[in-house]
Amino acid sequence: MAQRRYLLSEDAIPTRWYNVAADLSSMPPPPLHPGTGQPIGPDDLSPIFPMALIEQEVSGERWIPIPDPVREIYSMWRPTPLHRALGLERALGTTCRIFYKYEGVSPAGSHKPNTSVPQAYYNREEGVTRLATETGAGQWGSALAFACGLFGITCKVFMVRASYDSKPYRQSMIRTWGGEIVASPSPDTAAGRAILEATPDSTGSLGMAISEAVEDAATRDDTNYALGSVLNHVLLHQTVVGQEARAQLAMAGAEPDVVIGCVGGGSNFAGLAFPFLADKAAGSDIRIVAAEPAACPTLTRGHYGYDFGDTAGMTPLLAMHSLGHGFVPPAIHSGGLRYHGMAPLVSHLVHTGLVEARAYTQSECFAEAVRFARAEGIVPAPEPSHAIRAVVEEVERAEQEGVERTILFNLCGHGNFDMAAYDAYLSGTMTDIELPQEELDRAAAEMEGLPTLG
Amino acid sequence: MAQRRYLLSEDAIPTRWYNVAADLSSMPPPPLHPGTGQPIGPDDLSPIFPMALIEQEVSGERWIPIPDPVREIYSMWRPTPLHRALGLERALGTTCRIFYKYEGVSPAGSHKPNTSVPQAYYNREEGVTRLATETGAGQWGSALAFACGLFGITCKVFMVRASYDSKPYRQSMIRTWGGEIVASPSPDTAAGRAILEATPDSTGSLGMAISEAVEDAATRDDTNYALGSVLNHVLLHQTVVGQEARAQLAMAGAEPDVVIGCVGGGSNFAGLAFPFLADKAAGSDIRIVAAEPAACPTLTRGHYGYDFGDTAGMTPLLAMHSLGHGFVPPAIHSGGLRYHGMAPLVSHLVHTGLVEARAYTQSECFAEAVRFARAEGIVPAPEPSHAIRAVVEEVERAEQEGVERTILFNLCGHGNFDMAAYDAYLSGTMTDIELPQEELDRAAAEMEGLPTLG
Repeated sequence: MAQRRYLLSEDAIPTRWYNVAADLSSMPPPPLHPGTGQPIGPDDLSPIFPMALIEQEVSGERWIPIPDPVREIYSMWRPTPLHRALGLERALGTTCRIFYKYEGVSPAGSHKPNTSVPQAYYNREEGVTRLATETGAGQWGSALAFACGLFGITCKVFMVRASYDSKPYRQSMIRTWGGEIVASPSPDTAAGRAILEATPDSTGSLGMAISEAVEDAATRDDTNYALGSVLNHVLLHQTVVGQEARAQLAMAGAEPDVVIGCVGGGSNFAGLAFPFLADKAAGSDIRIVAAEPAACPTLTRGHYGYDFGDTAGMTPLLAMHSLGHGFVPPAIHSGGLRYHGMAPLVSHLVHTGLVEARAYTQSECFAEAVRFARAEGIVPAPEPSHAIRAVVEEVERAEQEGVERTILFNLCGHGNFDMAAYDAYLSGTMTDIELPQEELDRAAAEMEGLPTLG
Repeated sequence: MAQRRYLLSEDAIPTRWYNVAADLSSMPPPPLHPGTGQPIGPDDLSPIFPMALIEQEVSGERWIPIPDPVREIYSMWRPTPLHRALGLERALGTTCRIFYKYEGVSPAGSHKPNTSVPQAYYNREEGVTRLATETGAGQWGSALAFACGLFGITCKVFMVRASYDSKPYRQSMIRTWGGEIVASPSPDTAAGRAILEATPDSTGSLGMAISEAVEDAATRDDTNYALGSVLNHVLLHQTVVGQEARAQLAMAGAEPDVVIGCVGGGSNFAGLAFPFLADKAAGSDIRIVAAEPAACPTLTRGHYGYDFGDTAGMTPLLAMHSLGHGFVPPAIHSGGLRYHGMAPLVSHLVHTGLVEARAYTQSECFAEAVRFARAEGIVPAPEPSHAIRAVVEEVERAEQEGVERTILFNLCGHGNFDMAAYDAYLSGTMTDIELPQEELDRAAAEMEGLPTLG
């Protein structure tokens, strides 16, 4: 009987996070203060982040220790299993070997608790009693509510209206763990009220929800802000995924030729891929692929430059691929990938050629998600269905080239809260959105006048 | 760092199922033919079951080998983890040790695939191309759709109307795995049409849905029937749960004083408890507790006698605790526990004093489910929240007696598809139903005239 799952015991939970910055030959351009245009310092961030996370954000250390209380909570679901996709391999009729790291076994059903737990921990250590955040599909909001509950912190979640309406049970989950939740744009903030006044029917976006959460945190003494992706420290926390995957692939006697993750803000992708980047820097010909939605094609059709992380322009300017901070992505089912920007580290790696980017329509992704569910059992979240689509493309390419490859991808969450999307696909009512170039140009024009790169 | 999860590798998946019948000093009374009143034989069952399952149903062998193809599919999620409930222990402030076997890691999110996979396998081996079944909360229907998909069998699911309406995403899951689904009572069968004519607004029941599925199977040559609980062979397949738990408790150096499961038809309870019953038969003072809903109190307020397994009276007469085959349980959120009868083996064990039964209201169970979710992360399905309620009662009892006990229970599924129930609880709109004795007497009167026990 061929082995399907590679499991590690609790003592194999990584003891430190891997900081890819230590191994890059060039660093991404620094974040800039939106007012002065100068690189931001710790004091600029301290109103909304604890100092421990600010230090991680700018650290050049290769390894950063994971506090014991965080590891102790990780042990509720970590190490997560590495699966050999025997069923999918059979369904595809390929001799390529496909492995996936399955992060859907966490309480929140995704990789997000890998960072919500340390974020809640460091905030609690520094005396913060309340956190505000945004959430797209609800994965991050529920993960933060879960973590805050464990540390006795109040959690306020601004949930993108489109997902709030289409995924009501993510709301229920946040409330079950003790979190507070409101649809964004909301009347609770000045940013939200301004958007509602201009567009009362707004379906929201991650950019808008970030504006609201940052404002909430900046205007309350007891409250900090927590972000589920994009920033360096968030990507750092996710590297437990790739570190475990390396150990598990070694158990399987396998080395990956291709590593794949879907990208919205970039954190699940980075969590799996960064620990393998050192190999590439050391001369390995491993390929690393980021898969994004065609309806929000940040890496493949966006502009690489400075832009705001949010819609209202309250955040520092980040050097990243962006569709423009005012871009409102179409209401696709992958709510977690509806972000106009991208993690600066991921953007930098794409810009420097270390990472390849591809875009797929949601219909072609759901076709693969259904094939995957029937072959592997697990019903994937819509977001990682983009990674699965890229896996299938890699398999087809390998077959054409007559080679056998080992492919690793991150199945970063299950689709239990996304079944309406499967209904739409199976009933034939799912639509794909072609973004006209003029629309992208119009959105990108918002980046004009902002500082430019190099 | 105290260990939280006890994991087994794939080669520790049990190689055989444990048949408790081999260790009982007395056997339950046999099923009777509804027409003749005589014990049924294999020929009576062969129109709707494959011979391999009929043999398991009546076997006296202690161990029954698990076919390799079934173990191979089990390896998609088995062995499941045994968790030490460190968070719950802390929340309760107890020195009792609490362990739970977590079956929610299966693709369908419950213990049900443990039997759907072998049932689909044996049917496929005997040339069956289509299976019909009923489902309450949707756990069983989705588990059978999953298994049928793997073996290329068509799956038709009759889903109890109350759950069909309140859990639409269970429908989506069944369709994603390729199954067909209809709300029961349905116009697709004579039994369904008769009920709809009498009560067009019927919320359905497991008993009605069984009538429909059995009729579908009995009237089509290509179709067999599959049941998700109650029958001996179903309980047999679930014993992988308890066998693994024994091995995992040994890793933890623990022996349970109390073993607890919730009961609807009895299969998740039996799967965990039966492998521990041999200890009890051998003189151990281990206690075994079955927890049921107060709104469907089969074991605690039902009558022990012969009754039909379904509403229409198409099944054999089973010797079991029953509320009467016409009893329609109130539409509580634990759809999987809304069954008028009980597995004959479980009934026999309660009747002979080897198993204790308790009933709880859904509000008191949800209070514990929320406490559990906040302490352990996992959001439980409504059904096993009854087991958690019983665990807390056992802890309170131990504290009163000043003893430390080791408690094991079956967390047989997650609540990702049951969040509307959490909404109802958290918003204070959940109601508990007191069943008047006259209503129970009226329902039980249906059993008059049927063969009596002993």
